[in-house]
Amino acid sequence: MATIHAPELLIVMGGAATTDEIEHVVARLEEAGAQAHVTPGRQATVIGAIGERELIASLPLETYPGVEQVLPILKPYKLVSREISPDPTVIEVRGRRIGDGYFGFVAGPCTVENRDQTLVTARVVAEAGCTMLRGGAFKPRTSPYTFQGLGEEALVILREAREETGLPVVTELMDPRHVEAVLDAADVIQIGARNMQNFMLLAEVGRADKPVLLKRGPSASVEELLMAAEYVAREGNERIVLCERGIKTFERTTRYTLDLGSVAVLKHETHLPVIVDPSHAAGRRDLVLPLARAAAAVGADGIIVESHPAPEEALCDGPQQIPTAEFGEFAREVREVAELLGRQIG
Amino acid sequence: MATIHAPELLIVMGGAATTDEIEHVVARLEEAGAQAHVTPGRQATVIGAIGERELIASLPLETYPGVEQVLPILKPYKLVSREISPDPTVIEVRGRRIGDGYFGFVAGPCTVENRDQTLVTARVVAEAGCTMLRGGAFKPRTSPYTFQGLGEEALVILREAREETGLPVVTELMDPRHVEAVLDAADVIQIGARNMQNFMLLAEVGRADKPVLLKRGPSASVEELLMAAEYVAREGNERIVLCERGIKTFERTTRYTLDLGSVAVLKHETHLPVIVDPSHAAGRRDLVLPLARAAAAVGADGIIVESHPAPEEALCDGPQQIPTAEFGEFAREVREVAELLGRQIG
Amino acid sequence: MATIHAPELLIVMGGAATTDEIEHVVARLEEAGAQAHVTPGRQATVIGAIGERELIASLPLETYPGVEQVLPILKPYKLVSREISPDPTVIEVRGRRIGDGYFGFVAGPCTVENRDQTLVTARVVAEAGCTMLRGGAFKPRTSPYTFQGLGEEALVILREAREETGLPVVTELMDPRHVEAVLDAADVIQIGARNMQNFMLLAEVGRADKPVLLKRGPSASVEELLMAAEYVAREGNERIVLCERGIKTFERTTRYTLDLGSVAVLKHETHLPVIVDPSHAAGRRDLVLPLARAAAAVGADGIIVESHPAPEEALCDGPQQIPTAEFGEFAREVREVAELLGRQIG
Amino acid sequence: MATIHAPELLIVMGGAATTDEIEHVVARLEEAGAQAHVTPGRQATVIGAIGERELIASLPLETYPGVEQVLPILKPYKLVSREISPDPTVIEVRGRRIGDGYFGFVAGPCTVENRDQTLVTARVVAEAGCTMLRGGAFKPRTSPYTFQGLGEEALVILREAREETGLPVVTELMDPRHVEAVLDAADVIQIGARNMQNFMLLAEVGRADKPVLLKRGPSASVEELLMAAEYVAREGNERIVLCERGIKTFERTTRYTLDLGSVAVLKHETHLPVIVDPSHAAGRRDLVLPLARAAAAVGADGIIVESHPAPEEALCDGPQQIPTAEFGEFAREVREVAELLGRQIG
Repeated sequence: MATIHAPELLIVMGGAATTDEIEHVVARLEEAGAQAHVTPGRQATVIGAIGERELIASLPLETYPGVEQVLPILKPYKLVSREISPDPTVIEVRGRRIGDGYFGFVAGPCTVENRDQTLVTARVVAEAGCTMLRGGAFKPRTSPYTFQGLGEEALVILREAREETGLPVVTELMDPRHVEAVLDAADVIQIGARNMQNFMLLAEVGRADKPVLLKRGPSASVEELLMAAEYVAREGNERIVLCERGIKTFERTTRYTLDLGSVAVLKHETHLPVIVDPSHAAGRRDLVLPLARAAAAVGADGIIVESHPAPEEALCDGPQQIPTAEFGEFAREVREVAELLGRQIG
Repeated sequence: MATIHAPELLIVMGGAATTDEIEHVVARLEEAGAQAHVTPGRQATVIGAIGERELIASLPLETYPGVEQVLPILKPYKLVSREISPDPTVIEVRGRRIGDGYFGFVAGPCTVENRDQTLVTARVVAEAGCTMLRGGAFKPRTSPYTFQGLGEEALVILREAREETGLPVVTELMDPRHVEAVLDAADVIQIGARNMQNFMLLAEVGRADKPVLLKRGPSASVEELLMAAEYVAREGNERIVLCERGIKTFERTTRYTLDLGSVAVLKHETHLPVIVDPSHAAGRRDLVLPLARAAAAVGADGIIVESHPAPEEALCDGPQQIPTAEFGEFAREVREVAELLGRQIG
Repeated sequence: MATIHAPELLIVMGGAATTDEIEHVVARLEEAGAQAHVTPGRQATVIGAIGERELIASLPLETYPGVEQVLPILKPYKLVSREISPDPTVIEVRGRRIGDGYFGFVAGPCTVENRDQTLVTARVVAEAGCTMLRGGAFKPRTSPYTFQGLGEEALVILREAREETGLPVVTELMDPRHVEAVLDAADVIQIGARNMQNFMLLAEVGRADKPVLLKRGPSASVEELLMAAEYVAREGNERIVLCERGIKTFERTTRYTLDLGSVAVLKHETHLPVIVDPSHAAGRRDLVLPLARAAAAVGADGIIVESHPAPEEALCDGPQQIPTAEFGEFAREVREVAELLGRQIG
Repeated sequence: MATIHAPELLIVMGGAATTDEIEHVVARLEEAGAQAHVTPGRQATVIGAIGERELIASLPLETYPGVEQVLPILKPYKLVSREISPDPTVIEVRGRRIGDGYFGFVAGPCTVENRDQTLVTARVVAEAGCTMLRGGAFKPRTSPYTFQGLGEEALVILREAREETGLPVVTELMDPRHVEAVLDAADVIQIGARNMQNFMLLAEVGRADKPVLLKRGPSASVEELLMAAEYVAREGNERIVLCERGIKTFERTTRYTLDLGSVAVLKHETHLPVIVDPSHAAGRRDLVLPLARAAAAVGADGIIVESHPAPEEALCDGPQQIPTAEFGEFAREVREVAELLGRQIG
């Protein structure tokens, strides 16, 4: 017996749709190599479209006369979906791990400002038992009048910090022309929230042989985040860590609204590890610890936070950075929750 | 031949759903007096539920084992839908009209502060050829430390303004215990944005024999607004005017984001007249004229705006009120656009 | 030396403001009994308004010619603010407590459907060591075609459940005309999210001698929630528990976006206890446990969740209710996190 | 007499701030070359910071002990602000104009699919008297499984369309590595909504000698849009057209919520022309005309819309494209409103 496929999507024809209009939809589906399964009715007729997703997706079904709704049945992402790969992915770099029981604790300065600030922070982060070191070399800033990062000079400093501490380094890639330089210095390439739908950049890192830390855009839905990850995966690189960092809402007492519900949803939808950035969501230091603990408690596979030896002198995002002097205690309090949930620092 | 009904909704069973789980859903539908139309598949099985909406809606379909999605095919509102009543509704009060070519131009003070301020404004509004007079007697205010309205005293003043100008009066009802007093003084009862889902109040005005001006809540979707109207209609009162007044978004340069796209959508979905309140959305006077003209251009059936003889002395929302001295010119500029669109002031 | 007060707010006059315009603002402030402190400049002149909040708030400062911005310095809420009352408030009812180290674990059916369902659930909730029993008698529902609650009949059942289990009862008040009946049956009166700005209802419960559980509206900011609490407090009732239950955003994989960042902010701003409702935010059962644990980890003073003996037969919100058979384990897993944070179930 | 400058921003020190904390803020401001103007008080002390924006902005004021709020007095954008350049900017390309009374009517296919489709559409657009031709060569698509544009082949076709019709061509730049190719073919370079904060791309087009059409990101505030324009202007290119195309909100009946209130705000804030894209906001054809007319009525300097000879065969965004057969009538109906507002097609 032939395998019976479920429809990719259902096309609802309004009650006033004519037989011609219904037949027209069926004909277009069949031309595209799909099958049409028609359930007639007086108030509406439902057509199930069965076939190859890419072919069906190429049809502008909503524009056909008589069509009222197009309802997707199957999810638009494949490679990143848990349905396809039920086992959780573990990202392993230089012996450190994120995912499937390993809690990725990523920390470091918002921005690499100079050698000292970076090395001091890196040592504190390493001593606290963290998984990776973060540090910005190229900085996307809302205002052109603020510090834009040290660029390649920062990459040299990060490389030194890695050598000294052994911590793998995460840094952001903003421009396809920097790919080589960043790949050379970084162990994990970060795609920032504002570039989540910079498809050129996604394709570039999809061809790289280093893991990617993909941040959710401030107005991206869970589905759009997974589709961005699909862009990377489709080019061959499935070593992706997703990162929730807050969405844009009407609420202004925090910089962004940290969406931990979406973290719980992502854990169901995808096999990829999901971490949380409480620092950028909060925008103020006193909220970072409670939100980091909440992230661990909701079941995230890790966090990424910012620390600085003297936040009040920081060139960028000082208010949200944890002083290195307090970092050990901070790490201890987050670790407790992660361990209660059965995770170990990766 | 028997009439064939379209399914109310479709239940998508995941690829891993067992035969038992599918049969369980079918059995529950049948117990509820509905029919189940099953389309099997390997990746998903789709069950169409055909029957009485209220019976099907009473089933917690999402909770049944194996169910992945529940997709509604038919719209949840009936009485207010254009599918049921294709002809546009015209609200007629004391010879003035809103809907179907009649542009309802409703204006007046934000709040009735005293007899003089109200009568002066009412005369200007009448002279400009407006359709109705608005004026707040009971005021919902975010802060308990601000002016809350004159209450019943204001109703007496509004009655006098109506007698003098002949303009029908719109005023807000906030409390079911005020129904009688407000019905006695008002020609049209306003349900404010914050009370759009105060279902007790909706039921009360649904039993009244006066038209209702129902404002969209700041976080209400188009569908929720139509469902709130359905509450009123279901009690027997179908004389409802819907009002878009801005939704809550991340943008802060205007008080709310006026959603004129939803006005265009509402004109398709419902036979009820749809008007726009640019004053509350803008929160500042210089934006009221451009937004009022945009409302007329998008095809709204009217506007509701605020005017005051001396906005800088207003007890409430001064910044958005149009000085009465400028009101005639304001009205002329809005009317021009409404007339270009083929409407006349109702 | 006289006490020097900080300005309530600052009025920024644009660079093009004339001396007359500046003097006009000063004159109006002085008429209102306030002092004006002027800092002149070429690009802008800043006027500080010092005096009684209620008098200054009554001036429509934004409307005065030349005014560009009005910046509030002092917070608009007083009674509920931690600045006024630094010590955390503890709500104590029938020996159970919420706040200041006591984690309020409130649970029960979404809706009281019948005596059996309610008593069975109440016993399970009591046995799990919860703090209070919740149960809806009057239900606000988006659609008029769905179950609206048993009303007064439910109050009788709740009273019986309280007698049997000793648990204090929380139930929602929707209509000022039900105040007496609800006060008679309930130990804590809930104001639902849709009624958060139903100021008539807030004033009613502000005059009651029972604690109030005030839910955040789906589009209410933290400040608006605190102002709603201020309405209650100002009438004399300061026994208020705030409840975060998710806000309306573009994300649709959860019903609402649970805003745990705001919980952390509220803990700084107010002395009132703050609890979290993960059930309504999630809209699906599998997310309730992770979000409840996240709520405990972020430092909330409690949670309110829904449970049902047979969620798939529930008349309301079945998908999000926890089966009573799993409730003990659920409670254990939440309690663990609360205890790690140094709380005990109240 | 020395010129007195207004403070760039005000720093509010909480009531509990110590004298040391206040002096510390003053000292840091002075070190940065700024002046501090202190207004002491019991509940709060306000410090005005007067000096160079870039120096003051480099201080992490929020992190200093005792600081409660930092309130900006002066706007963060300069070059694009109407305060700096009160006269409206007119963008002129090949004799066509946008801004200051010239309504820019930009139209064309969503995507260049082939030579025929593009030329047919271009002729219709030219015949309707439009200002410019749009057409996508590189397409940002949410899903990697959909058509991504013809790339350079499309640029050749667009050049031919320009030669034949004389219409200047607008096309999107997505990758800094395509700058030369796109600059070569296009008269106006579009920066798409998803790249509004791709600061690398903004800097590139800031150095180009062609006008830039900058679309607002779906979660960008008006201020963020103006800051993105400032990035371009700061590199030397002030020939910028801003474009509102809808923001992400909870409402789903339109694809995005078209924010015409922000258009009215932008007309006050900036000298740059502001146009509106109703096609992408609506996502469905029947809403494009009402929204285009509303855009003209709100005072926009133009619109950008999509047209296709056979939308139902379009490879991208078919549902929102206007059939070329109906385009003349569409243009006439929009032009009427623009002319009523005193504009002529540029």
